[in-house]
Amino acid sequence: MKRAFFIVWLVVFVFVAGSGFCADAPVSDATSECIDCHAMIHPGIVADWKNSRHAAVTPQKAMAVDGPARKLSAQSVPEKLQPVVVGCAECHTLRPKAHADTFDHNGYDLHVVVSPKDCATCHAQEAEQYSKNLMSYAYYNLSGNKLYDHLKRSIIGKSSLTKGKVVFGQPDPVVEADACYYCHGTRLEVIGTEIRDTESAGELEFPKINGWPNQGVGRINLDGSSGSCSACHTRHAFSMAVARKPYTCKECHVGPDVPAFKVYAASKHGNIFSSKHQSWNFDTVPWTIGKDFTAPTCATCHVSLLVNSDEAVIVERTHQMNNRLPWRIYGLIYAHPHPQSPDTTIIRNDDDQPLPTSLDGRMALKYLINESEMQVRAEKMQAVCLNCHDTSWVKGHWKKFEEIIQATNAETLTATLLMGDIWKHGFAEALDRGGNPFDEAIEKKWSRTWLFYANSIRFSSAMAGGGDYGVFAGGRYQFSQAIVELNDWLNLRKRVFPRTKP
Amino acid sequence: MKRAFFIVWLVVFVFVAGSGFCADAPVSDATSECIDCHAMIHPGIVADWKNSRHAAVTPQKAMAVDGPARKLSAQSVPEKLQPVVVGCAECHTLRPKAHADTFDHNGYDLHVVVSPKDCATCHAQEAEQYSKNLMSYAYYNLSGNKLYDHLKRSIIGKSSLTKGKVVFGQPDPVVEADACYYCHGTRLEVIGTEIRDTESAGELEFPKINGWPNQGVGRINLDGSSGSCSACHTRHAFSMAVARKPYTCKECHVGPDVPAFKVYAASKHGNIFSSKHQSWNFDTVPWTIGKDFTAPTCATCHVSLLVNSDEAVIVERTHQMNNRLPWRIYGLIYAHPHPQSPDTTIIRNDDDQPLPTSLDGRMALKYLINESEMQVRAEKMQAVCLNCHDTSWVKGHWKKFEEIIQATNAETLTATLLMGDIWKHGFAEALDRGGNPFDEAIEKKWSRTWLFYANSIRFSSAMAGGGDYGVFAGGRYQFSQAIVELNDWLNLRKRVFPRTKP
Amino acid sequence: MKRAFFIVWLVVFVFVAGSGFCADAPVSDATSECIDCHAMIHPGIVADWKNSRHAAVTPQKAMAVDGPARKLSAQSVPEKLQPVVVGCAECHTLRPKAHADTFDHNGYDLHVVVSPKDCATCHAQEAEQYSKNLMSYAYYNLSGNKLYDHLKRSIIGKSSLTKGKVVFGQPDPVVEADACYYCHGTRLEVIGTEIRDTESAGELEFPKINGWPNQGVGRINLDGSSGSCSACHTRHAFSMAVARKPYTCKECHVGPDVPAFKVYAASKHGNIFSSKHQSWNFDTVPWTIGKDFTAPTCATCHVSLLVNSDEAVIVERTHQMNNRLPWRIYGLIYAHPHPQSPDTTIIRNDDDQPLPTSLDGRMALKYLINESEMQVRAEKMQAVCLNCHDTSWVKGHWKKFEEIIQATNAETLTATLLMGDIWKHGFAEALDRGGNPFDEAIEKKWSRTWLFYANSIRFSSAMAGGGDYGVFAGGRYQFSQAIVELNDWLNLRKRVFPRTKP
Repeated sequence: MKRAFFIVWLVVFVFVAGSGFCADAPVSDATSECIDCHAMIHPGIVADWKNSRHAAVTPQKAMAVDGPARKLSAQSVPEKLQPVVVGCAECHTLRPKAHADTFDHNGYDLHVVVSPKDCATCHAQEAEQYSKNLMSYAYYNLSGNKLYDHLKRSIIGKSSLTKGKVVFGQPDPVVEADACYYCHGTRLEVIGTEIRDTESAGELEFPKINGWPNQGVGRINLDGSSGSCSACHTRHAFSMAVARKPYTCKECHVGPDVPAFKVYAASKHGNIFSSKHQSWNFDTVPWTIGKDFTAPTCATCHVSLLVNSDEAVIVERTHQMNNRLPWRIYGLIYAHPHPQSPDTTIIRNDDDQPLPTSLDGRMALKYLINESEMQVRAEKMQAVCLNCHDTSWVKGHWKKFEEIIQATNAETLTATLLMGDIWKHGFAEALDRGGNPFDEAIEKKWSRTWLFYANSIRFSSAMAGGGDYGVFAGGRYQFSQAIVELNDWLNLRKRVFPRTKP
Repeated sequence: MKRAFFIVWLVVFVFVAGSGFCADAPVSDATSECIDCHAMIHPGIVADWKNSRHAAVTPQKAMAVDGPARKLSAQSVPEKLQPVVVGCAECHTLRPKAHADTFDHNGYDLHVVVSPKDCATCHAQEAEQYSKNLMSYAYYNLSGNKLYDHLKRSIIGKSSLTKGKVVFGQPDPVVEADACYYCHGTRLEVIGTEIRDTESAGELEFPKINGWPNQGVGRINLDGSSGSCSACHTRHAFSMAVARKPYTCKECHVGPDVPAFKVYAASKHGNIFSSKHQSWNFDTVPWTIGKDFTAPTCATCHVSLLVNSDEAVIVERTHQMNNRLPWRIYGLIYAHPHPQSPDTTIIRNDDDQPLPTSLDGRMALKYLINESEMQVRAEKMQAVCLNCHDTSWVKGHWKKFEEIIQATNAETLTATLLMGDIWKHGFAEALDRGGNPFDEAIEKKWSRTWLFYANSIRFSSAMAGGGDYGVFAGGRYQFSQAIVELNDWLNLRKRVFPRTKP
Repeated sequence: MKRAFFIVWLVVFVFVAGSGFCADAPVSDATSECIDCHAMIHPGIVADWKNSRHAAVTPQKAMAVDGPARKLSAQSVPEKLQPVVVGCAECHTLRPKAHADTFDHNGYDLHVVVSPKDCATCHAQEAEQYSKNLMSYAYYNLSGNKLYDHLKRSIIGKSSLTKGKVVFGQPDPVVEADACYYCHGTRLEVIGTEIRDTESAGELEFPKINGWPNQGVGRINLDGSSGSCSACHTRHAFSMAVARKPYTCKECHVGPDVPAFKVYAASKHGNIFSSKHQSWNFDTVPWTIGKDFTAPTCATCHVSLLVNSDEAVIVERTHQMNNRLPWRIYGLIYAHPHPQSPDTTIIRNDDDQPLPTSLDGRMALKYLINESEMQVRAEKMQAVCLNCHDTSWVKGHWKKFEEIIQATNAETLTATLLMGDIWKHGFAEALDRGGNPFDEAIEKKWSRTWLFYANSIRFSSAMAGGGDYGVFAGGRYQFSQAIVELNDWLNLRKRVFPRTKP
């Protein structure tokens, strides 16, 4: 009898898993109408959605779940939305008056760009946390900082030649959108409408949107909100499983400035992930250490709600990702305690520059979290480590990591003292003489030291892995080389231009 | 009853899938004879083949398939080949008189190197298309272009020191085969025979082949044909599924000159592929968007026959991969409309150089496709995009992409103006004064701008992803740095060598 | 009847695979006691172990296996250990008097750091082989070589500025542990004890260990042994399957000095691995070519016991990985025949420097394996190749590879002649004048040629793949550029400093 039962269970399991059949998934009339056309026009979008949790679960059902397994964090959801699954219309017709891109589409007030405020209808807590995340200010923090503006211009500005000098003009908005704002997010703006002759429905009118398409993490949306949930929860599957895998973070964290993915992939953790994750479970909430997975991904340490095999909560879920981070190891220009506010445009260092540290290494302490908050955050992170490592391991690792922060900051100081000497001699145009401190050949060599090499070393140290990225692959080898090259360049200029400025 | 049926089906499925049993796969006597020995001598080769479609399907059966699912594109296949699966003998004894490496092997006229002309016996259309593909000319286009010869020599030529100058001599053929021609393909040549004492059959005579082994895309074969199907359809499985995965393209498209794989892997598409492809179906023909896969691989956009869920054809299969590409974003030295002919050695720019653009950015329009052809190709590509993205997304993306092409070309012009100034001053030996324009220190800095950085930015823009590769990882940061370093170098030389040439 | 049997089998299989149930896996009382607490405190560790072979098989059972399938290589195992699975206590209480970190932990004499000598209790042959592996000397060979000390200091030493010069002081031990010794291994040392207030058991005393945590391949352990099995057999699963995948080797072999993983991943072999390995079997011993896998991973060629489909042994397992390597393609500073002894500190070149080659390319033949040993090793490797490639392929590949070794050595000579000229002119401080030959700007440019570029080219050639890494991605392009830049730098200094030294 038991055997027969098992067989039935097995068959049902195979059948259900294969067909994706969901008996209890009522679709709203509006969404059905969307799908009628768009299943043919955009089969990829509809297929993604059909395989998603959104297509399988109604808010009503999601609200019935209690405890850590609950995925819907809003205390209440508008009644109209409760009994139907989360389909096209449920998101794209929400709050029509709030969105500048709302337009009439076959009788519906529809908007193109769904914002975190829309998602907050069900995922209130995540949206709230994310609004305190540095990432949600990624557009503002870059566009509203005069010093970063110099840096941005020196990299993506349109170059021209004038009297033996290269001048970088203001970057073209399209270039900004393709470069920095691809990850940071663009500022969206409705600039009119256009008529398009569609195959399925003849002539239709659509809004024209500047800065679109974009999914950057700090995108300024057409309802004034900032951020893009689909940066990580890729449309239209919005999969938690995908967001939990490191490939999602790689989209913006692979370059020499923040080589997090590269370091992870070469670390012990990354090795285990690559070797074993096909047998892990990325879909469960809460996420159980040792049962669902046996090595961390980015999300494990930085975002997810984790429990141990006794279902005791180890850390709460957070979409304010620096919640577990005492240090910001991305040097500006030195690694420093995390800023208190996600709005970093308000920061002024001791020299009144909009940077969290001074060029000589002093911290803008007033704007940074204090030691006690650092301790709180460190303990959250260590609580994760301690599930797979004993205390001596974790303490040893952490001590080393904090010493490496100081060691790399010391090297940045050496490089910056040399740069200061170069500015003093007038071999490059210093900021206090009206120059862009990032746009000359030797300044670029200097900015690599803290923008690339010091970060790479710290990421490698933080993840206790990816050794090569701390040494030969954009780490200490390149850092030490840049320092001696700064010196070599200076000594030659001193000889060639003994009295004059170039 | 139904349940019982299902169980039987399940059991049969498990059994068949496990055993790889194929009732209807008659093997020719000749191939059986091959396998008798080679299953022991080269178990890896035989195992690959046994798991392949070639070992499971006869041409007869393949020809019985009609419509988009048909994989055999030849209108007719020699009768002798029809009733047996495609085994060792079927390929390695085809057209014995055509192959210079045909030799007697245990009574069979056998050739070592199978060529696209052999494959064309069944895959006529693919071979025909591929013969119009730039790739099939990869050997000729490199070896037959005097300017590329300069570039090649400056990179892989044997260096020596003469009177304070580094001279790069003609590259060693082995170095050519190991470097450029590894991907481009070697020119194969029979240079004699040798007797080998084999374990299984005593002394046997074999042809000696120069340039072998090689699987480069433009290999010159021993029947005079060019190309190597096994470059992508790896021997001896010749798997379509493998060719559809991006790892195949990575073999030649990962470096800074064409960082296509790196950009893809860091893009949204690449993220979805990495996260989800284990559950996709890479074996179906035609390939159904939304059902077989939910994000594109390289093959999806550039090669495969795609249908939507209504089985309507979205794009036809092509092995002439630029069919869907209006622009060639690989700068020579500027990005330009694709050449009309795959033989690019015929191109002359306005300055009579064998380049599709002049050094000052003018296009060799006579040799490039015109705007209407560009439009046709753009529409083919956009037809793919439109399955998962709405029109505003696709149009917005494409507009940005084309503006980025212009923006990167403008930066290449700045770099080249500086290089021109350096040549004019005689600080490097210009082409028109008999110099190799690529072989001096400062020329190498210049060639990086268009050979690496501009390409990287354009690949990143084209795939709407891999943001880091457009900025910090060999993108705009390095591009702008190279420009100011060119200027810095020039200004120093002007000072140090005010009147003389170095 | 048969069908019924099959269903039962299927059900049992699903059940067992799902539950991880192992009837015959008696756990020792001591280990049970460990797990009682640690399953809660460190669920990740316990979960890893529970899924491991160690938790499923007793030495008794392992010793009953004969022939190539045997995994336990010791001739005898202490009787006490035979009837229980290999749990916490079995490793962490072994040989208590031998370990300097042995401490009393709830009545057990426990040590933190398990060493290869502990593992040798069962895996005697592997430990013995590994002790002859270069890797087991990775700490000593780096720390005991005065020339490498110069190199190390120039990369990770603490920088300071003195009279227009950058001076690199002795590296901080923490930096050493985070950088070089992360892979090479640290020297562990007990520096005292500490009391920790534990949640589960109140105050407990633990040893404090300098250099911990670390899993470098040449770690000096607290029993005086060297090496760390968990470098590759990651604790606490100690999985052979993971070690057989290339991600394990990537942990230390991804950087530009030894870009083995990058080259592999872009090679034909790597492509097949990436595309197909999900269906391979990484758990079987011996490992059958063509059945368990169809393309090699790092372990296949360098470590594993391989058999063909007739169960004939192709190569024996080795943990002395250079067993199959005639050449050491990691240039110091030229590629050379492998050293005879894993202790490379004893080597002196013709100029009495502790290097296997002289700066002008002569080999320190006395310390290197001779041609006949090279031939023996080459044949072992080729025996692997020949399972999937015919003799002409393998011979052609090998001939090309050896010519590329000579060609890259010739380019290293060009670079070194230029560097010699620079030293001779006094533009950098030469070794024989008391200088560090690696710490100046131009010396760093030179060291890149043999530490990065020549290696990259050779790895690409050796694996017959990853073409980009031999040319544009840290290969010949960068090599030739460095050579002309060395010359450019020298010519400028000759002009600017005509008589004096800088």
